[in-house]
Amino acid sequence: MSTVSKVSVATKRLLLGRPFRSDKLGHTLLPKRIALPVFASDAMSSVAYAPQEIFLVLSVAGITALAFTPWVAVAVAVVLAVVVASYRQNVHAYPSGGGDYEVATVNLGPNAGLTVGSALLVDYVLTVAVSVTSAAENIGSAVPFVSEHKVWFCVGAIVLIAAVNLRGIKESGALLAIPTYAFIVGVLGMLVWGFTEIFVLGEEIRSETADFGIAAEQDNLTGLALVFLVARSFSSGCAALTGVEAISNGVPAFRKPKSRNAATTLLMLGAFSITLLLGIVLLAQEIGAKYVMNPSTDLVGAPEGYQQKAMIAQLAHAVFDSFPAGFFFVALVTALILLLAANTAFNGFPVLGSVLAQDRYLPRQLHTRGDRLAFSNGILFLAAAAIIFVVAFDAQVTSLIQLYIVGVFVSFTLSQTGMVRHWTRLLRTESDPSARRRMMQSRVVNSVGLVMTATVLVVVLITKFTAGAWIAVLAMVALFVVMKLIHHHYASVQRELDEAEADDEGVLPSRTHSIVLVSSLHMASRRALRYARATRPDVLEAITVNVDDRDTRKLVSQWEASDITIPLKVIASPYREITRPVIDYVRRVRRESPRDVVTVFIPEYVVGHWWEQILHNQSALRLKGRLLFEPGVMVTSVPWQLTSSDRRKETKRYWAPGETRRALGESERTL
Amino acid sequence: MSTVSKVSVATKRLLLGRPFRSDKLGHTLLPKRIALPVFASDAMSSVAYAPQEIFLVLSVAGITALAFTPWVAVAVAVVLAVVVASYRQNVHAYPSGGGDYEVATVNLGPNAGLTVGSALLVDYVLTVAVSVTSAAENIGSAVPFVSEHKVWFCVGAIVLIAAVNLRGIKESGALLAIPTYAFIVGVLGMLVWGFTEIFVLGEEIRSETADFGIAAEQDNLTGLALVFLVARSFSSGCAALTGVEAISNGVPAFRKPKSRNAATTLLMLGAFSITLLLGIVLLAQEIGAKYVMNPSTDLVGAPEGYQQKAMIAQLAHAVFDSFPAGFFFVALVTALILLLAANTAFNGFPVLGSVLAQDRYLPRQLHTRGDRLAFSNGILFLAAAAIIFVVAFDAQVTSLIQLYIVGVFVSFTLSQTGMVRHWTRLLRTESDPSARRRMMQSRVVNSVGLVMTATVLVVVLITKFTAGAWIAVLAMVALFVVMKLIHHHYASVQRELDEAEADDEGVLPSRTHSIVLVSSLHMASRRALRYARATRPDVLEAITVNVDDRDTRKLVSQWEASDITIPLKVIASPYREITRPVIDYVRRVRRESPRDVVTVFIPEYVVGHWWEQILHNQSALRLKGRLLFEPGVMVTSVPWQLTSSDRRKETKRYWAPGETRRALGESERTL
Repeated sequence: MSTVSKVSVATKRLLLGRPFRSDKLGHTLLPKRIALPVFASDAMSSVAYAPQEIFLVLSVAGITALAFTPWVAVAVAVVLAVVVASYRQNVHAYPSGGGDYEVATVNLGPNAGLTVGSALLVDYVLTVAVSVTSAAENIGSAVPFVSEHKVWFCVGAIVLIAAVNLRGIKESGALLAIPTYAFIVGVLGMLVWGFTEIFVLGEEIRSETADFGIAAEQDNLTGLALVFLVARSFSSGCAALTGVEAISNGVPAFRKPKSRNAATTLLMLGAFSITLLLGIVLLAQEIGAKYVMNPSTDLVGAPEGYQQKAMIAQLAHAVFDSFPAGFFFVALVTALILLLAANTAFNGFPVLGSVLAQDRYLPRQLHTRGDRLAFSNGILFLAAAAIIFVVAFDAQVTSLIQLYIVGVFVSFTLSQTGMVRHWTRLLRTESDPSARRRMMQSRVVNSVGLVMTATVLVVVLITKFTAGAWIAVLAMVALFVVMKLIHHHYASVQRELDEAEADDEGVLPSRTHSIVLVSSLHMASRRALRYARATRPDVLEAITVNVDDRDTRKLVSQWEASDITIPLKVIASPYREITRPVIDYVRRVRRESPRDVVTVFIPEYVVGHWWEQILHNQSALRLKGRLLFEPGVMVTSVPWQLTSSDRRKETKRYWAPGETRRALGESERTL
Repeated sequence: MSTVSKVSVATKRLLLGRPFRSDKLGHTLLPKRIALPVFASDAMSSVAYAPQEIFLVLSVAGITALAFTPWVAVAVAVVLAVVVASYRQNVHAYPSGGGDYEVATVNLGPNAGLTVGSALLVDYVLTVAVSVTSAAENIGSAVPFVSEHKVWFCVGAIVLIAAVNLRGIKESGALLAIPTYAFIVGVLGMLVWGFTEIFVLGEEIRSETADFGIAAEQDNLTGLALVFLVARSFSSGCAALTGVEAISNGVPAFRKPKSRNAATTLLMLGAFSITLLLGIVLLAQEIGAKYVMNPSTDLVGAPEGYQQKAMIAQLAHAVFDSFPAGFFFVALVTALILLLAANTAFNGFPVLGSVLAQDRYLPRQLHTRGDRLAFSNGILFLAAAAIIFVVAFDAQVTSLIQLYIVGVFVSFTLSQTGMVRHWTRLLRTESDPSARRRMMQSRVVNSVGLVMTATVLVVVLITKFTAGAWIAVLAMVALFVVMKLIHHHYASVQRELDEAEADDEGVLPSRTHSIVLVSSLHMASRRALRYARATRPDVLEAITVNVDDRDTRKLVSQWEASDITIPLKVIASPYREITRPVIDYVRRVRRESPRDVVTVFIPEYVVGHWWEQILHNQSALRLKGRLLFEPGVMVTSVPWQLTSSDRRKETKRYWAPGETRRALGESERTL
């Protein structure tokens, strides 16, 4: 074995980087100004649909109920502020980027973690569906063609985003920043200009829906019914909170001091979101904008065939009445940030899958990030599920929103519960008074967050369960069960291996018996024979299955004429099969000398096109698959590369989606 | 190598049967009384639809044109007699069962053979479509429900027959005999009884359509148009000839003297077919039966919603007027023999595919008959194609017949041309006068056959090309081209191998460098390490890809604590990939010592369920697929059988369809 160790030292040089440190090359950590747009598109984009949902729900009770909108918006803003404050604690306590899944798993156990995992997976699907649908509505407000073919537009957009992610792109933080900042500038500009006109210049701005009445579905609501309606409106408005947790998954991607920068970015995100949300609601109320479920029946006085615009589009239309470019700009950037939010889900979904795979809740291969195929499956699954939702709900934002926020708030609530436990646990051992004080403070913040998010979760479940939330709950339960079963399977395989290890006596196989499968004496077979001989087995023989008398006779006479000294056995195959006679033969060899290892060498053509694959190797592949079921048998493929295989030889670096957000090479493990 | 030769002798006993003779166990050759029904169902069943097509075409010119029907039937009978006489020559000259494909290939070259092959493949598809459709019509004559859901019935029947064949059944000649003899008995009985009633008892039997008039589409046909119509009617009637060639494919399955028995059976088949054909047409004319394209418009005086019965059903209905069981019996056995004919195509299609694969016109794996998967693909393809035709032509026998007989007559004509050449060639060297005389006679028979079938082919092409025959021609051309391309591909691969052989210097690899891929130190890896060590390579090392720091650290510390002396290398994977770092590593090893063979050992789990496969081995499989593209690298799978794999361990004997007809173990090669 001395050669072995020598080569071992020699090849050490081959290794890239230090053995336990991943390579940091090619990756730059994000400054806050880039991190904000990279992580905020999801959360920010939700203010594009949250406000109008508040209006929509309340309009059920007629025009007078719209007086509640500012209060509902303020309530949502308060929840948002509390959640942001809570997550600032998370970011400090768990800087590894594990997010809610890690917090729940560590503090509440694997089932809580898995619940968060299921909730988030469902949520990613709905993020795609809601964002794309809302994007279609916003573009549709400016381009009627899109609103007339909304479902097709949404399906097309999802397919396009999926295709881009399947291809694998090297993301650029700066590029992602443009639409987000453009959105902030566009909407803030619209709000400032609108309020300036109204309160400074004293002009009267009226929304195009200002003069319509609302046909109330339920007039004269009693106290309790009204409370329920306001609560539902609040539930819908809470859609504005989706995406806030994203930063807590991305702490490793920040520049140092990571946690503090992430916390600051979270604060900026909160400030922008609250400003935009309140601004939109207040301006909308000021100019009399309305948003209803069925414009044709609910809007009194609307002209025949009136197409209702998205709320932001209504505001932009009214504010930029004499400046159409402004209107188009706002509609465009709103749609862009929404599509970006959908893209974010395509990044997050496989990353979450990777974490779940690491903990053996999903197939293991999803764990390797560079693996294009593993990521592809996740992307295809996400796209298909989102398309199903979009088509099933006819691309109606309002219907999809009913399903949406259950998952988010399940995740929020469990995460905050976990954080409260986290601080309680730390306090048990901490003695430094100032540290204890800080922890107590943090625990208070997270407790308030817990109470708040749990309350919202209950409100959401009560007000939306029958309206569609049950579908999301069902999907979450189904995912939970499937992942449990997968985990169970891996555990039982592990047990089987452990038992085998306990029974293991550590004996080396006594001899090696090599069998080369040949069908004719071409170069592929010759090479297999040579390679098999190079491994110097104790027994070496070639076998051929007599599927065709004429071919076999030809092979035998060529063999005898050749310089090959390896004996050739002809195996009879009365039914012209290949697999069974070979298996039978190998079994007999095994029976005669059970302590031998049998190695079957199979020459295989390597081809470049899928259709060539159909024309070659099929019997070999099937035989290989079956041979693996025989204990004590190894199967060796000896490839013969046809020239056509060259075209597939290059291995390209695959840029997995979401890399910018993941801070490659930093604390990969805990994510 | 002395051990090698000793074991070689020892294992000789393992071989089943003599090396160059296939095993004949479990197979009985067919006596004539069984061979007739086994091979005749296809040909015999075609008299179930051919007569009515003669009536249908002529009825276009009104009721007076029906006077031609006996003459057309006689013409068809003459052609049938000539073709039977011709094929008796084929059977004697080519007793190997190669059929038309062999005759054309040997005598006219590969392109003619391939044309026959394409024609027959298309024909099998149409046999299924026409037979099943006609069965539906015949059952529908007794059971209105079937005729109301004809397309569904046909699709269901095709799926059922395909399923039975996919499962693989051990056919019993006796079982196949029952429906065929029942059909002969039923229809002959009906004819005898009918003619007895009319001519002996002097009763008047009238078909239910006897009193209807026919709305002629074309009155007062001029001479040429009438000739064309009669020719078209004759073309349709020639559908009665389909299936006659089947016996020439099955000579090896006959008892000795094979050729004579086959020729006699062919004669019996011809006699039965002609009798039934003429009998049906004459009886139909006698009792005034009619069959038209569109009963609702073409039949004058028919009651509203009249459902036209199949011709045989009309006869049975009239003859067994006071004996309904007779009517139902005839309808049933007619449907049965038609379904049997469809089943025959399911047998013949993969067998022809196997012959074409042997000559490298189709993927090679189709050649091994015992191979379930190869046969399955053929069966699925046939079923899908037949369903497409049935659905596209709305299960109309008349429309499908337009496409049908082109293929048959292409095959007949080329086969007869080949036979004429065959005799001419033999005559060139034969000097024995009596042998010469016999050959001359045979040549005359085949020449008459050639002229006759070529004439019919021309008539069929002229009269039916625009009516649908072009589709069949197009399909044949497409198949021809695809098979040519496949052949070309195999030839170019062969050339590539030959060139490599010419350049080959016959050097053995200098050393072996074995690399074992490990991810953790469980039993599957341990076994791989042991097996790899058992092959005693010059260099042996284990590598692991550092996808996850924590896992890698654990593995390294376990490794160091264990008794394993093989060095473990950790390969960095900055992008958490597996495939690329391993490929890069292997390439470097190859570059450092290009004359080494590198063997990569991959531990693999063997599982019993498809879903387990998803949970395991995915990375390994992908790596394996990619490694094969590297020259000088072998890939060895070291299986670890999980207990769940036991359920898939058994290899069952698969009864490929069509075995009864194929006479296993006899001259398999030339088929």
